[in-house]
Amino acid sequence: MDSRVQKLGYRGAVTLTAKGHATRQRIVEGTSAHLRRGDPAGVTLDDIRAITGTSKGQLFHYFPGGKEELFLAVARFEADRVIDDQQPHLGALTSWAAWRRWREAVVARYRVQGPYCPLATLMDQVGSTPGAAEVVGQLLERWEGEIRRGIVAMQEQGEVDDHLDAGRAAAAMIAGIQGGVQVLRSTGRSAHLEAAMDLVIEHLRGA
Amino acid sequence: MDSRVQKLGYRGAVTLTAKGHATRQRIVEGTSAHLRRGDPAGVTLDDIRAITGTSKGQLFHYFPGGKEELFLAVARFEADRVIDDQQPHLGALTSWAAWRRWREAVVARYRVQGPYCPLATLMDQVGSTPGAAEVVGQLLERWEGEIRRGIVAMQEQGEVDDHLDAGRAAAAMIAGIQGGVQVLRSTGRSAHLEAAMDLVIEHLRGA
Repeated sequence: MDSRVQKLGYRGAVTLTAKGHATRQRIVEGTSAHLRRGDPAGVTLDDIRAITGTSKGQLFHYFPGGKEELFLAVARFEADRVIDDQQPHLGALTSWAAWRRWREAVVARYRVQGPYCPLATLMDQVGSTPGAAEVVGQLLERWEGEIRRGIVAMQEQGEVDDHLDAGRAAAAMIAGIQGGVQVLRSTGRSAHLEAAMDLVIEHLRGA
Repeated sequence: MDSRVQKLGYRGAVTLTAKGHATRQRIVEGTSAHLRRGDPAGVTLDDIRAITGTSKGQLFHYFPGGKEELFLAVARFEADRVIDDQQPHLGALTSWAAWRRWREAVVARYRVQGPYCPLATLMDQVGSTPGAAEVVGQLLERWEGEIRRGIVAMQEQGEVDDHLDAGRAAAAMIAGIQGGVQVLRSTGRSAHLEAAMDLVIEHLRGA
């Protein structure tokens, strides 16, 4: 994809200049920062104009679908952050030390995040928007793919049994993380998240 | 607890006769069946009176806290069903055949349930009610306790390594089930739930 072409969700794609791209990104990031502090349902486009210092015309130029389209773009930005916060570890799970560092990064990220999950809150807002289900679906797929590649890398090094189904183990890890985060969000405790990640890693190590 | 004493959540406890208990239970079960068909947010107490064939006076006698208190009672009823649907397997995880039957029962239950989770929907409604967090907390605790007891039973038979931390493995199983069900609810596919449960069971078996 050309870097100047920015997908605008269900409204199709428009070509943005580098400056246009930067402005659009500024609106998305400003909205994200604002939503992290408060209640997404109560935010108006006027609030967003004020926060991001943009005119009504600019906002509708970049987000012709209005608040829903903007929120969907913010959801994509938050989904990217979920992956980014796990890097560089997630992208290079090629040693047990890397797996341990990744496990620590995931637990630390969700402990800091606590009960409020920006992505979950946004999904509550845009759940009925075309393309909304894809945001979470693609995030989980990408996440699971990185874990699967890490398991295969360990198999190639002879560190994980060749007979183990890497795809199934990666799916189990994703399920454990999702459920562990859900328990952490409602109880404030990370024990379930840690237990799930540790058990899958121990299973990979054949311990 | 005397069988005629029925806890009424944050309103304290009142003594009910056997007949009163039956009436209260009929209101809870009728409301549950109705909510499973539709939108909880839109249901009024008049709807519930009509469905359950009760008078306004009766409804307020059993649920002085109104709709919130009734919904909380329905949430407790749904939480009990989550456990009941896994019986008799969950309560007697004393052989690998029992573990397999339990695993099948859980997967089948959530496949049939699909995207609509009665308990999750009720929790969206009563999340701010005193006692609401306890409904899910107590469910998970009870569920995890049964799994932990099953692991200990297998350790006593020499089927699971004595050094394995039964509490931690049970927590990992709960996280995997929660996350697997979450993925199933949004994608309709049970692969993650199955992968998570199978991996923990294989780990217990030392496979």
